[in-house]
Amino acid sequence: MPIVKILTERELRQIVPLDIGAVQCVENAFHSLATKTVAMPPILRLDVPEHRGEVDVKTAYAPGLDGFAVKISPGFFNNPNVGLPSTGGVMVLLSSKTGLVQALLLDNGYLTNVRTAAGGAVAAKYLARTDASVAAVFGAGIQARLQLQALALVRPIREARIWARNVFKAEAVAKELSAELGFSIIACAEPIKAVAGSHVIVTTTPADQPILRAEWLEPGQHVTAMGSDAEHKNEVEPAAIVQADLYVADSLTQTRCLGELHHAIAEGAVAGDASFPELGEIIAGSKTGRTSEVQITIADLTGTGIQDTAIAWLAFVRAEAAGAGSALEN
Amino acid sequence: MPIVKILTERELRQIVPLDIGAVQCVENAFHSLATKTVAMPPILRLDVPEHRGEVDVKTAYAPGLDGFAVKISPGFFNNPNVGLPSTGGVMVLLSSKTGLVQALLLDNGYLTNVRTAAGGAVAAKYLARTDASVAAVFGAGIQARLQLQALALVRPIREARIWARNVFKAEAVAKELSAELGFSIIACAEPIKAVAGSHVIVTTTPADQPILRAEWLEPGQHVTAMGSDAEHKNEVEPAAIVQADLYVADSLTQTRCLGELHHAIAEGAVAGDASFPELGEIIAGSKTGRTSEVQITIADLTGTGIQDTAIAWLAFVRAEAAGAGSALEN
Repeated sequence: MPIVKILTERELRQIVPLDIGAVQCVENAFHSLATKTVAMPPILRLDVPEHRGEVDVKTAYAPGLDGFAVKISPGFFNNPNVGLPSTGGVMVLLSSKTGLVQALLLDNGYLTNVRTAAGGAVAAKYLARTDASVAAVFGAGIQARLQLQALALVRPIREARIWARNVFKAEAVAKELSAELGFSIIACAEPIKAVAGSHVIVTTTPADQPILRAEWLEPGQHVTAMGSDAEHKNEVEPAAIVQADLYVADSLTQTRCLGELHHAIAEGAVAGDASFPELGEIIAGSKTGRTSEVQITIADLTGTGIQDTAIAWLAFVRAEAAGAGSALEN
Repeated sequence: MPIVKILTERELRQIVPLDIGAVQCVENAFHSLATKTVAMPPILRLDVPEHRGEVDVKTAYAPGLDGFAVKISPGFFNNPNVGLPSTGGVMVLLSSKTGLVQALLLDNGYLTNVRTAAGGAVAAKYLARTDASVAAVFGAGIQARLQLQALALVRPIREARIWARNVFKAEAVAKELSAELGFSIIACAEPIKAVAGSHVIVTTTPADQPILRAEWLEPGQHVTAMGSDAEHKNEVEPAAIVQADLYVADSLTQTRCLGELHHAIAEGAVAGDASFPELGEIIAGSKTGRTSEVQITIADLTGTGIQDTAIAWLAFVRAEAAGAGSALEN
């Protein structure tokens, strides 16, 4: 009888920490996207308006990989009222050869958090100045923390500023992260002050109106906007995309519909069929990344199915090697 | 900590047999589709061409139901070469209120088989003559068996004919099913002979060219075409749809793209925006079904996410009541 491996969130946290291995895994995923015939269908989206809920299903298959993930990501925004997290979910890993279910990764969204933060690190690794040491983070949620932690894996960050609508939350996160990461992190009451003098700016909010103004950007800065993964979300002023020296999408098909680019197109600031490099193409060397220390670069990350497949496969391989998880005959 | 219920295929076979309860469950699902604001997004489809594999993901949410399913259905057509079934999969049941994963139904496609056969029974219940006693089945696979079994739950079937490309398979299935269902079932070498004098014809094949000719159809016959669930599949000659007194879709959005209707539209036999009743509308009484014993009716079933949600919810409720399955804290 076929065996299905079951891994709990606790087990997955142990075997897939947010470290340079996770960043490398996601970097390889983007490289595949640019160099292989990856099948990555449009995101399936279900809305449950009665309970302010939504579910995204993402998947992708890359030739040569023995498995692929189907990820079910719910977001139910009334959950905090009853003491539950808004996001959660599960990844199902299937064999690329037989379609058999190989593993159920009951991660409650943990692996998504890791692969998303790792995606931010990959963007910074290829687009931020190599000597970037000052970071600004917009937002005070889980991705604000993880993005800064991931960024510090690829750039010599020595100082960070956090801005969030709720300054008390920003202060709490700044204090906590400063102790954890070992460098100075302060909360800023004004977003413009967080941006001034930063080398990397990471936006991690669910904003539906721009919170990062084009006129605030300074030569040499890199922006990673990773909050927008749905039509209505928008963190970056469209003019910033027009003015930037380099705009890079995780998946151009997705950012045209779901990302910051979507709003620039909707406003008429950018043509709907305008072409831009994708992160994987820059990693693979088929498109050019940052070419000087004064360029302004923007990475627009909506989250891709190939990242899910990559992190799920990493979790499965490590779990097999470590004998982690439980096995169910079915 | 939240509890995830895990149910194996063996447990699901015990608690959800193909019986009148399953038929009623699927009938209710179609009723909901016609009477409630059901969210049923387009099917997500991933292709794995290297291994002749494909994966469909279906889902639907109906207001008032405390859970909804996301179903992952792989079909890998090289599997029989290595002694594995072509189809399989898993259903994930999520809470409609919180999005938390409530249950993992490791059915290996069993629940899909049940809800699909039950869908055929619902179509016959509303569209076939009430005294229908002779059935023809095209195909000799699992759905050939289950469709006939389900049909016999809603109509007084006393005789059946099975046609399949492989006549030996048809004979084997006829013999086996005859013993199981307790009425005469014969294999036919010619599809036209299976059709002649039948009251209900059910096509269950993966054909990509019509195998049921319009000119074979006789007054009073009902056809359920359930084999086509993808663009390239086609069992019924487009002329049959034009000539029929009544064509009914499970979901018109889906049959226009994936069903028999798709090919009638592609051939120009039917306008792309032509409107037809859906099965749920006939169940709910908002559209008219069969009105005489001489009408020819056709039901075009592509398989809907609301059927998956309905059968998954039935399995979960019954498992909870019976204390079946195992519980995992996560």
